[in-house]
Amino acid sequence: MSERIVIGHGSGGKLMHELIKEFIAPVIGLKEFGDSAILNVFKEKKIAFTTDSYVVSPLFFPGGNIGNLAINGTINDLAVVGAEPLFISIGLIIEEGFEINLLKKIIFSIKDAADKAGIKVVTGDTKVVNKGKGDGIFINTSGIGLILQDIDISPKKIVPTDKVIVSGSIGDHGIAVMAKRNGLIFNPPIISDTQPLNGLIKEILLSYSGAIHAMRDPTRGGLATTLKEIAQEASVCIEVEEDKIPIKQQVRGACELLGLDPLYVASEGVIVAFVSENMAKCILAAMKKHPFGKDAEIIGEVKLSPKGMVLMKTKIGGIRIIEMLTTEQLPRIC
Amino acid sequence: MSERIVIGHGSGGKLMHELIKEFIAPVIGLKEFGDSAILNVFKEKKIAFTTDSYVVSPLFFPGGNIGNLAINGTINDLAVVGAEPLFISIGLIIEEGFEINLLKKIIFSIKDAADKAGIKVVTGDTKVVNKGKGDGIFINTSGIGLILQDIDISPKKIVPTDKVIVSGSIGDHGIAVMAKRNGLIFNPPIISDTQPLNGLIKEILLSYSGAIHAMRDPTRGGLATTLKEIAQEASVCIEVEEDKIPIKQQVRGACELLGLDPLYVASEGVIVAFVSENMAKCILAAMKKHPFGKDAEIIGEVKLSPKGMVLMKTKIGGIRIIEMLTTEQLPRIC
Repeated sequence: MSERIVIGHGSGGKLMHELIKEFIAPVIGLKEFGDSAILNVFKEKKIAFTTDSYVVSPLFFPGGNIGNLAINGTINDLAVVGAEPLFISIGLIIEEGFEINLLKKIIFSIKDAADKAGIKVVTGDTKVVNKGKGDGIFINTSGIGLILQDIDISPKKIVPTDKVIVSGSIGDHGIAVMAKRNGLIFNPPIISDTQPLNGLIKEILLSYSGAIHAMRDPTRGGLATTLKEIAQEASVCIEVEEDKIPIKQQVRGACELLGLDPLYVASEGVIVAFVSENMAKCILAAMKKHPFGKDAEIIGEVKLSPKGMVLMKTKIGGIRIIEMLTTEQLPRIC
Repeated sequence: MSERIVIGHGSGGKLMHELIKEFIAPVIGLKEFGDSAILNVFKEKKIAFTTDSYVVSPLFFPGGNIGNLAINGTINDLAVVGAEPLFISIGLIIEEGFEINLLKKIIFSIKDAADKAGIKVVTGDTKVVNKGKGDGIFINTSGIGLILQDIDISPKKIVPTDKVIVSGSIGDHGIAVMAKRNGLIFNPPIISDTQPLNGLIKEILLSYSGAIHAMRDPTRGGLATTLKEIAQEASVCIEVEEDKIPIKQQVRGACELLGLDPLYVASEGVIVAFVSENMAKCILAAMKKHPFGKDAEIIGEVKLSPKGMVLMKTKIGGIRIIEMLTTEQLPRIC
């Protein structure tokens, strides 16, 4: 471990995993690394609990801003573990001198996103730091959800032969933020996919409960890092096919221009689901009927071994080994 | 409202109340302003949910650091609404270049504080911001507690004749941080009172359930601001006696030296309780038996009117009207 924190420690990739798994988690006794913790508060019911801080830069980008991003991100972290999101908290860390008009826009956007997803903001906190000791505004959202009746999903439920579905095209959010940060204008513009997935997820979970084994949303570190995490946690091999992975033409073009690999670029409105082989087509069809799942695709399947690995069949017929993000390709993307 | 955020918006005082009550809360639909939200997740049980971001400067001060401060603060916010704290989340926002050794000290301190209070850290998040865009480390802690059986406390339960008890001497935390920040050395040193109050609170709540009407911890804005908040929420008058309010001699001296009013200086290990007149002495005695309540005192009582006001009988026999903190007396104290 290096002696000082570097930007890569926040990337969602390998450095962050090392910091958390080798040091923070053992000390504080964290054992699970899913998007939310699943807790027994009462005998008969389980709740999900999650936290995320948002430090996205710039604060406003095509398709959203730090406010709705924070709400949608926390909703999605609850939804992918099988919970119905219920309550959310808002912690603001504002830099002295921040324009109150911008704060208003962000707060209205928080309200709008919470309403759209049917979640209630129930508690909050406001701190102000001196000018030069922050960066406009940082927002923490923590959320509580109720695990849906009879739903019990986790990477440990994944079995070989499972199909891998992504619910939409990947990388839109990361590229939208990156383009805005660098003053790049694409035509048509690339819009962040920040959106609440709890509706889509609840629909497919209730319709195909036993057949959906695990879900995760590929945010920081992108699809590649998420697949690698899951392969390790489930102790399986995940094989995906490059030409099945939905990526918008503009996103692909922007990645080429910026020297980025779209597999590592964050999405904020996409899930990866691991589902029973025999139900995969039905689940895909159900997803495609939902406006947030219309671009869903089956991108691969789960194999017994080599355990913990992610392999991609490339368009030209080769096999590429997919690792976690090792550098900070896109800092402060969420 | 000014057009830009100023340090005072984070003070816990009047400016912050205006920002939150006149703008943020109406927009997002927040109706309660207690330390924690109380939520019905299941018919028969209620949970408490709270969030706080910690931006204290300096990060290390006599008696604690940002890590145990964040844990204890969230525990206390849950405990004062009548909940048993169960689960906590940790959101780290770290500035690039931060020393990993300091991070380790903070994480060990988080673990230690959680163990001492019997709460589990169950989920977390790590973000890194560029050098110069943060200030070492900010920590958000959100917490979930279970409201104790048959306990239902809130400022609305306060009635005239209630006695006002503080569980310990006030202002230690604020002065400890302020002294460290300014390189002041007191002999004996002034130590932060950061400590978990869930044990003390549970003990008195279970022993005197119906007699304890409301509690709050006087953190940012100090005892004065907390009393004013409660007087407004309960629509009563609170009368306190200056010479009953416990303040350590060194804290009083430091306040004189620094030009501060101890009534507005934050405590992090003290509660203010509003209790039935006929049980007040028993509750005071029970508090005094607990190591965190040994300096407890009855400092005043609740009157019918003038509603929303806090009056202090001064040592020289006058009456002082106590208002909320109006400036940022002590920025970044928690």
